[in-house]
Amino acid sequence: MTAKQEQTAITPTRAQDYPEWYQQVIRAADLAETSPVRGCMVIKPWGFSLWENIRAALDRMFRETGHVNAYFPLFIPLSFLEKEAEHVEGFAKECAVVTHHRLEAGPDGKLVPAGELEEPLVVRPTSETIIGATYAKWVQSYRDLPLLINQWANVVRWEMRTRLFLRTTEFLWQEGHTAHETKQEAWDETVRMLEVYRKFAHDYMAMPVIAGEKTPCQRFPGAVNTFCIEAMMQDRKALQAGTSHFLGQNFAKASEIIFQNRAGEREFAWTTSWGVSTRLIGGILMTHGDDNGMVMPPRLAPSHVVILPILRSDSDRAAVLAYCEELAAALRAAQYDGAPVRVELDARDQNAGEKSWQWIKKGIPVRVEVGPRDIASNSVFVGRRDKAPRERYGQNRAEFVAGIGALLEDIQNSLFAKADAFRAENTVDIGGMDDFRAFFTPANAGKPEIHGGFARAHWCGGAECENSVTNELSVTIRCVPSGEADETGKCVVCGSPSPRRVIFAKAY
Amino acid sequence: MTAKQEQTAITPTRAQDYPEWYQQVIRAADLAETSPVRGCMVIKPWGFSLWENIRAALDRMFRETGHVNAYFPLFIPLSFLEKEAEHVEGFAKECAVVTHHRLEAGPDGKLVPAGELEEPLVVRPTSETIIGATYAKWVQSYRDLPLLINQWANVVRWEMRTRLFLRTTEFLWQEGHTAHETKQEAWDETVRMLEVYRKFAHDYMAMPVIAGEKTPCQRFPGAVNTFCIEAMMQDRKALQAGTSHFLGQNFAKASEIIFQNRAGEREFAWTTSWGVSTRLIGGILMTHGDDNGMVMPPRLAPSHVVILPILRSDSDRAAVLAYCEELAAALRAAQYDGAPVRVELDARDQNAGEKSWQWIKKGIPVRVEVGPRDIASNSVFVGRRDKAPRERYGQNRAEFVAGIGALLEDIQNSLFAKADAFRAENTVDIGGMDDFRAFFTPANAGKPEIHGGFARAHWCGGAECENSVTNELSVTIRCVPSGEADETGKCVVCGSPSPRRVIFAKAY
Repeated sequence: MTAKQEQTAITPTRAQDYPEWYQQVIRAADLAETSPVRGCMVIKPWGFSLWENIRAALDRMFRETGHVNAYFPLFIPLSFLEKEAEHVEGFAKECAVVTHHRLEAGPDGKLVPAGELEEPLVVRPTSETIIGATYAKWVQSYRDLPLLINQWANVVRWEMRTRLFLRTTEFLWQEGHTAHETKQEAWDETVRMLEVYRKFAHDYMAMPVIAGEKTPCQRFPGAVNTFCIEAMMQDRKALQAGTSHFLGQNFAKASEIIFQNRAGEREFAWTTSWGVSTRLIGGILMTHGDDNGMVMPPRLAPSHVVILPILRSDSDRAAVLAYCEELAAALRAAQYDGAPVRVELDARDQNAGEKSWQWIKKGIPVRVEVGPRDIASNSVFVGRRDKAPRERYGQNRAEFVAGIGALLEDIQNSLFAKADAFRAENTVDIGGMDDFRAFFTPANAGKPEIHGGFARAHWCGGAECENSVTNELSVTIRCVPSGEADETGKCVVCGSPSPRRVIFAKAY
Repeated sequence: MTAKQEQTAITPTRAQDYPEWYQQVIRAADLAETSPVRGCMVIKPWGFSLWENIRAALDRMFRETGHVNAYFPLFIPLSFLEKEAEHVEGFAKECAVVTHHRLEAGPDGKLVPAGELEEPLVVRPTSETIIGATYAKWVQSYRDLPLLINQWANVVRWEMRTRLFLRTTEFLWQEGHTAHETKQEAWDETVRMLEVYRKFAHDYMAMPVIAGEKTPCQRFPGAVNTFCIEAMMQDRKALQAGTSHFLGQNFAKASEIIFQNRAGEREFAWTTSWGVSTRLIGGILMTHGDDNGMVMPPRLAPSHVVILPILRSDSDRAAVLAYCEELAAALRAAQYDGAPVRVELDARDQNAGEKSWQWIKKGIPVRVEVGPRDIASNSVFVGRRDKAPRERYGQNRAEFVAGIGALLEDIQNSLFAKADAFRAENTVDIGGMDDFRAFFTPANAGKPEIHGGFARAHWCGGAECENSVTNELSVTIRCVPSGEADETGKCVVCGSPSPRRVIFAKAY
């Protein structure tokens, strides 16, 4: 090796082993860990605080678009799930099933399940059917519509191969469920919530996404149309980050959500559902994380600033801590994104350099070191998480405090710009199958982290063409992008006419 | 009937049939309903908003006392539950048990559970054992302590007789789980969180409570000491509204939470747990609700003020609505309890009287009617939920807006004062068993709603005396009140010496 290798806080690096890097960042940032329960995770305080901030921001956006929260049962009777044929088929293979309601001592004295239920209960994998049954009771007339309800909840899908945040047996999410008088209103709602997700990803997660429609093969089980936002991770794979479903009258028919319309006729309601989950945390990590750990976008960061007192001698101690306390109070009195700046003061008796690295790994946007010399010059020593760890600068304390909101916003914007540039670099228009294969075939078999990127290519609309690239290259159509001008061309697989380009990629 | 009967919005009244009145208030206030899933409830938007406000206020109090939130798995392996013998015995009879992880077509084509699990999973009835297993990994040294973590979650206890909010198979709650270096620290934490609950009940729910310790028979399964807050409902029965458990080293031993102490020795940690649940909503209803429905204490009310435009003619319409919009904006710019006043403007095309009654039933603290005459006099017509529906008053609009915070606080205080007076009236010192029997035996068998009240009586400390009153009168010892001076006396049951009075009552 000729160039000097920069030491990194995370081993392995992204280039060395991307999937393992992901796990190590979660560990180093103290976000979550696997639990003793197969496939279920423990979300640790630092990771859960990120989720609470995601939840608060989305909840505000849902309210602004007219939605209210409610809570529906965890359990779904098996017969409810069976009411929509495609739906139950989609979830049957991954259902946690409650069959008994107590425990009693078995023949050998050990406890065994007892009190078998007449009808098994499925732990909700999603709530269309149980909420549909409830809406059927609530809706009599067009005057009862629309119903615009969201639920924050845990759901369970029994996954065989799990990965923290990205695919876990239990996860946290929100599921919006709405019912409308007309097809158009339900369609508008579906599109509106997709736009809320797109905006949230851009403005809060600093994660550029492509909003579009799923192909029929990739629809939510029972939906008429499924829309999604797709992001590019740093291994160039796609992450589906949110979905919004136009359910037509399918679930209204299954659940008998019937209302008397303005013409006095009985009609099935038109419904939608839409959701995002703790998977978003994995998306933030893989969009912004680097070889030194997590990188929190300021608008969602559990804390914005950590103050690190440099305590070299006992004689300095009191003065340094007092200066830091004042600094913390001044920062907390400042605002960012409409709320007080969130500040940590890390006065633990540990080496300052070690503490600084812990906070780098946790991804806190701004680190401020304060030692006796800084106090003498009435200044602070600042490090930004979007810059290299050594790239720090001194600044007058009052100026730093006055500029904290602008600094955080600058970091937020720089994270978005970097992710946007990365995605642009790795998104290519592809015309023919040879180029397509080359794009998705690693040039160097020793670099398994390279997954091509987003290929914008024509597609005839046929499931056969779609399946053939999936079978050959593990590539899927991520979406048919919304809002793009039509462009006639030839299907990259079969050469038949195509009305527009779609996004192909490998995906999580 | 000679006296003219005042018409009430809820039938039956509290005096006619208290349990049925409770159900009818929930229905009329649109708080919740039973679901198609046995024992599980649907919490409707108005009821859920109340829970969100409870959650936000408590969450702030938990943070102020140094706690952070995290999330642990929904499922508990059966072997974990079995680690603490008393604990599993306490919950074995009410466990929802997951035994299979998928569905497949059975012999008759219908779906049946398949993929049997090697070890059954219990849907958490409480999380001491799964959190204990996690803490065991996190704690190595005294430096890792204390752990001060709270979880907001759903839990399941299979109940045979359910009642909305008070006793449901699934309910929402928070559970704090802390681990400490010393017995004293864990003890202090137990007492501190009991005080948080007492203060929350008083200051937010406007519900007076007695804080005290449970008798050994009534401890949480596996706890060394259980503390509780007990409130008196309007049928004079007690409601246990929150519990805080000193767990000693019992669960640390079961889960092997072992740390190296300051002396370099291995020691079991000292743990606590504490929780309140959606049961609090039932407590608010039965503390403040009246024969016209729900009464929301302002500090927790989903909305504080509803503006009801009086729209008698189309010509008035635009002017009245504009005035109401301005009023709403002015109120929303005002503050109550550190946040903007929450305002509804109900412009639905319905009879104003009907709408007013709907909001009375929902328990909104303040109603404001605005018609053309009010506009002409620049005034509003105000009704308070803590007064009779007809007892309303006109007020200058600017004065009303300027005084809204004080008005809400006055309602909050009047609700507390009324509940406190009711409890005082129905709390009596009782010396002998004859008086005790008379107190808890309805004088009139046709008035099943009378349950005596709180009897402050001496108790020797013996389980036999405790059980005998439970068996004879369905009365339990609610708690040994904290912070009362010792007073020697004789056990109300057996006459043996007793160091202090305890609270006896019938209970939910």
